[in-house]
Amino acid sequence: MTMQDARMPEGDESRTFGSHKGYVSGDRPDVRVPVRRVHLTNGRDVTLYDTSGPYTDPNITTDVRRGLAPLRENWIISRGDTEEYAGRELRPEDDGLKHTSPRGGLRNLDAVFPGRPRQPRRGRDGAAVTQLAYARRGEITPEMEYVAIRENRAPEFVRDEIAAGRAVLPANVNHPEIEPMIIGKNFLVKVNANIGNSAVTSSIEEEVDKMTWATRWGADTVMDLSTGRNIHTTREWVLRNSPVPIGTVPLYQALEKVDGKAEELSWDVYRDTVIEQAEQGVDYMTVHAGVLLRYVPLTARRKTGIVSRGGSIMAAWCLAHHRESFLYTHFEELCEILRAYDITFSLGDGLRPGSIADANDEAQFAELNTLGELNRIAKSHDVQTMIEGPGHVPMHKIKENIDLQQEICEEAPFYTLGPLTTDIAPAYDHITSGIGAAMIGWWGTAMLCYVTPKEHLGLPNRDDVKTGVITYKIAAHAADLAKGHPGAQDWDDALSDARFEFRWEDQFNLALDPDTAREFHDETLPAEPAKTAHFCSMCGPKFCSMRISHDIRRDHGGDLSVEQIESGMAEKSKEFAESGNRVYLPMAD
Amino acid sequence: MTMQDARMPEGDESRTFGSHKGYVSGDRPDVRVPVRRVHLTNGRDVTLYDTSGPYTDPNITTDVRRGLAPLRENWIISRGDTEEYAGRELRPEDDGLKHTSPRGGLRNLDAVFPGRPRQPRRGRDGAAVTQLAYARRGEITPEMEYVAIRENRAPEFVRDEIAAGRAVLPANVNHPEIEPMIIGKNFLVKVNANIGNSAVTSSIEEEVDKMTWATRWGADTVMDLSTGRNIHTTREWVLRNSPVPIGTVPLYQALEKVDGKAEELSWDVYRDTVIEQAEQGVDYMTVHAGVLLRYVPLTARRKTGIVSRGGSIMAAWCLAHHRESFLYTHFEELCEILRAYDITFSLGDGLRPGSIADANDEAQFAELNTLGELNRIAKSHDVQTMIEGPGHVPMHKIKENIDLQQEICEEAPFYTLGPLTTDIAPAYDHITSGIGAAMIGWWGTAMLCYVTPKEHLGLPNRDDVKTGVITYKIAAHAADLAKGHPGAQDWDDALSDARFEFRWEDQFNLALDPDTAREFHDETLPAEPAKTAHFCSMCGPKFCSMRISHDIRRDHGGDLSVEQIESGMAEKSKEFAESGNRVYLPMAD
Repeated sequence: MTMQDARMPEGDESRTFGSHKGYVSGDRPDVRVPVRRVHLTNGRDVTLYDTSGPYTDPNITTDVRRGLAPLRENWIISRGDTEEYAGRELRPEDDGLKHTSPRGGLRNLDAVFPGRPRQPRRGRDGAAVTQLAYARRGEITPEMEYVAIRENRAPEFVRDEIAAGRAVLPANVNHPEIEPMIIGKNFLVKVNANIGNSAVTSSIEEEVDKMTWATRWGADTVMDLSTGRNIHTTREWVLRNSPVPIGTVPLYQALEKVDGKAEELSWDVYRDTVIEQAEQGVDYMTVHAGVLLRYVPLTARRKTGIVSRGGSIMAAWCLAHHRESFLYTHFEELCEILRAYDITFSLGDGLRPGSIADANDEAQFAELNTLGELNRIAKSHDVQTMIEGPGHVPMHKIKENIDLQQEICEEAPFYTLGPLTTDIAPAYDHITSGIGAAMIGWWGTAMLCYVTPKEHLGLPNRDDVKTGVITYKIAAHAADLAKGHPGAQDWDDALSDARFEFRWEDQFNLALDPDTAREFHDETLPAEPAKTAHFCSMCGPKFCSMRISHDIRRDHGGDLSVEQIESGMAEKSKEFAESGNRVYLPMAD
Repeated sequence: MTMQDARMPEGDESRTFGSHKGYVSGDRPDVRVPVRRVHLTNGRDVTLYDTSGPYTDPNITTDVRRGLAPLRENWIISRGDTEEYAGRELRPEDDGLKHTSPRGGLRNLDAVFPGRPRQPRRGRDGAAVTQLAYARRGEITPEMEYVAIRENRAPEFVRDEIAAGRAVLPANVNHPEIEPMIIGKNFLVKVNANIGNSAVTSSIEEEVDKMTWATRWGADTVMDLSTGRNIHTTREWVLRNSPVPIGTVPLYQALEKVDGKAEELSWDVYRDTVIEQAEQGVDYMTVHAGVLLRYVPLTARRKTGIVSRGGSIMAAWCLAHHRESFLYTHFEELCEILRAYDITFSLGDGLRPGSIADANDEAQFAELNTLGELNRIAKSHDVQTMIEGPGHVPMHKIKENIDLQQEICEEAPFYTLGPLTTDIAPAYDHITSGIGAAMIGWWGTAMLCYVTPKEHLGLPNRDDVKTGVITYKIAAHAADLAKGHPGAQDWDDALSDARFEFRWEDQFNLALDPDTAREFHDETLPAEPAKTAHFCSMCGPKFCSMRISHDIRRDHGGDLSVEQIESGMAEKSKEFAESGNRVYLPMAD
């Protein structure tokens, strides 16, 4: 396998967007939080949150065959509450290969990843090694200190939000490579990007590339939803190279192990898969334990039935056996596994609505009630927990979703897919859902699961991943602004200042997507002088609204009161007339 | 000048999206309202609102050199309250040409448009020939009957909404080519698309093409914001070929006539321009009459000053002369002109915020109060009026805008640009603003002015126009759903039914953008059998969530009560196991 280093070339200013990677240090010398520092042409710097990992640091040599450095390893070891152990033995079916398959294309499973040798780690003697357990004991871990700096909050605040279950810090002890981040309504709204191959398409290389690409544009976590071949190996490569927490739906892999026959699933196969993924380092797992047998008939007269893949797998199992879901009946056992690795629950909404017609129906809210029950059980085992939400919901029904979730789930972080606010625009569902995502983020959702333009139609490619991430970064930031998150507006203000002062390069470099902003500008006015011109292609050089505003500010602005300004107007009006009365730069007249 | 016929080729099914142009007739045989009828593979039809005009009717031969047929001509003539007259004489400066310019490139102004000869028309003896005047007299015009059918409302309801000033039906007596439409909060939310050349770029041909292209994708009105050469001629070609109302900002052309020197503007130049455009058939005009001299200093300490081009032109004029705006002081005279042609006022928000920092500030709301005053004056002259709104507004400050506007302006239709919910994403401002547009539409905005990806960066090309229109159709429809507009959800339901029943072709044909939906699907699964496959590329063939839902519906759905469903489950579970327990189609295993 050959993979290109995803790091951007050094010294290429157009690729680094007039910015450099910086670090903010904490009290501990080994807490160094990455930031992107944008250098403005007026000599100022703007510091932005940075999810891109070591790939954007020209001083770090990365190699996807070796993986990222284990940033958290010493923190984990020095806590002294975990142990290394031999771990589960790998099997051909972990990669979707049948026992009877010809071995020709089979990778050596002992060497699924060529990087540094490692043994899995877990809590010693069943100890809860979770950030929730530490927070409840009053401890501030290095991970908490890290996110405190990252979010510009006090470490105690971070600890207390985690202890209260209002925030999660997903960080499997077997994923020491991550740069810690936090998900909770009192922090910046986060964005998740889904990647993953399927039986139909995609390769390991593509998935690793999509992961680094998604974090490059701002994805805070990545879910690997692979369902095809090489699931185990793909995940290993993704984990070893990911600077952000990785989530999965273990049920998908479990189903592959029983050849796609839902009724052949069992607690044993599922449990084995969870441990397999736990040992690899998966940071959070979607578990559809709220799909109860008695809820399945509630979906029968829906317009679009059950649209969650995990939800429908469990519904099929429940129907086939006419028994309660093994995820529900074995939930406490699952809690014991997750707390030994500090895997965060993402309690899945298997009965989420798949159409406007099905929004906020009985099936959906019945499951939400059960998720509330499971949330309490998980917390009692010191397992960090967030709750997944819909789906397809018209705007006037969105608020009920977050309000009910917060009440039923004791303010556990809500993690929603969109919601899509209409069904009529396949190929544009990043937009139909970006609208709902911004709104539900404003009202308290902690993390938004992106939707790409390919939703409902196909698997996203690289461009789709970028479009999905950018759209959701817009929704998340719009939500931060609407919540009045401290400092959120600084970014908007810096960009608006640059716009008002015709600092085009600064405007591009501060944009969420500097490349495209520059490209669009240059389509109309490609020449270099246009980058400093005091006009743009919209109005042309003859009259520019921004120019006249500068004249007004020069003549009437500054520190004067409105009264002073008004009294000065008549005089200035005279001067203005005497100076020739030209309010534009006649550059191309 | 050569221009291609914009009509789509006949019989090309992939271009006509499995649909045909239909007409719904009213009581009068000459009221025939166009619709798009989508023919589903299950034998049903879905009828959709259609803005595309005669261009999509294979039975009509269109020719952009002749213009569209004057659909409303007999209605206007038979009212007997208008007269033809000689009209204003055309001058070189109407097309931005100087008196002293060399005549080489000069078009013969007597023949700016080669179509049927026409004379301008106006109200006889200063009569108010407006739909508002008719509605107030209790009359139901053919135009009202037309929109009643189009909106599936009673004609009396349409009349009463217009009479109350809650809705406008923009329809200049000199634009008989339009298919009447209505703008008001109790009707479908409408979308405007801006086109227009500038001093820097664009040609007449491009602008006419953008107009037909924008209406093809659903634009309900088009504003021609040209500021460069050939303004008059471009507008003539656009008007004669437009099936939707055309709006303008007359101040832009007036400024061109005084060589871009704002201080040389005068009521006379402006008035002359309004009459020039009135005689051509402009249906609504943006007038920035609310930018008063005393408001200008309020913008001095804003982050981005005055960003409205019209607003800044008037601010410059006020400052230069230190006099009150001539648009304000001559407003009643302007009303008399507009009512003689039935031109609708779009009272411009010249002091709208251009950044998140400036949203909902004193300058903005001071102007809104003046617009409320002007709205009352316009109504007293029987002139139809709508009010323009911002701009850049964070989500939590959006509702105040529509609530204040509705109160101050007596429920006159609100017509907003976005609003953009963050400043950080140039190149994606169709999305930052689509979020705000959907929300403000839900809360009562009647028409949304689109924003394209090029906003702040350059002039939109054909692709940008399409992206802007589709994004805003999403926002408008999401708003219709959230308002509970009668019948709005039928479209979503039809598409969701098609999705659930794996009717891929129907899903594409019902999409807002069938071309792109089909293209995205085919990228992953191009073969024809995939169009009827009961799986898609997301899950692959091994397990499909939709499939299991079909099994659930078959086994437990229909007309049974929940109790009956539950009692039937044990039995069905047994059958399911006996049948081999396969919940997927093993097509590619």
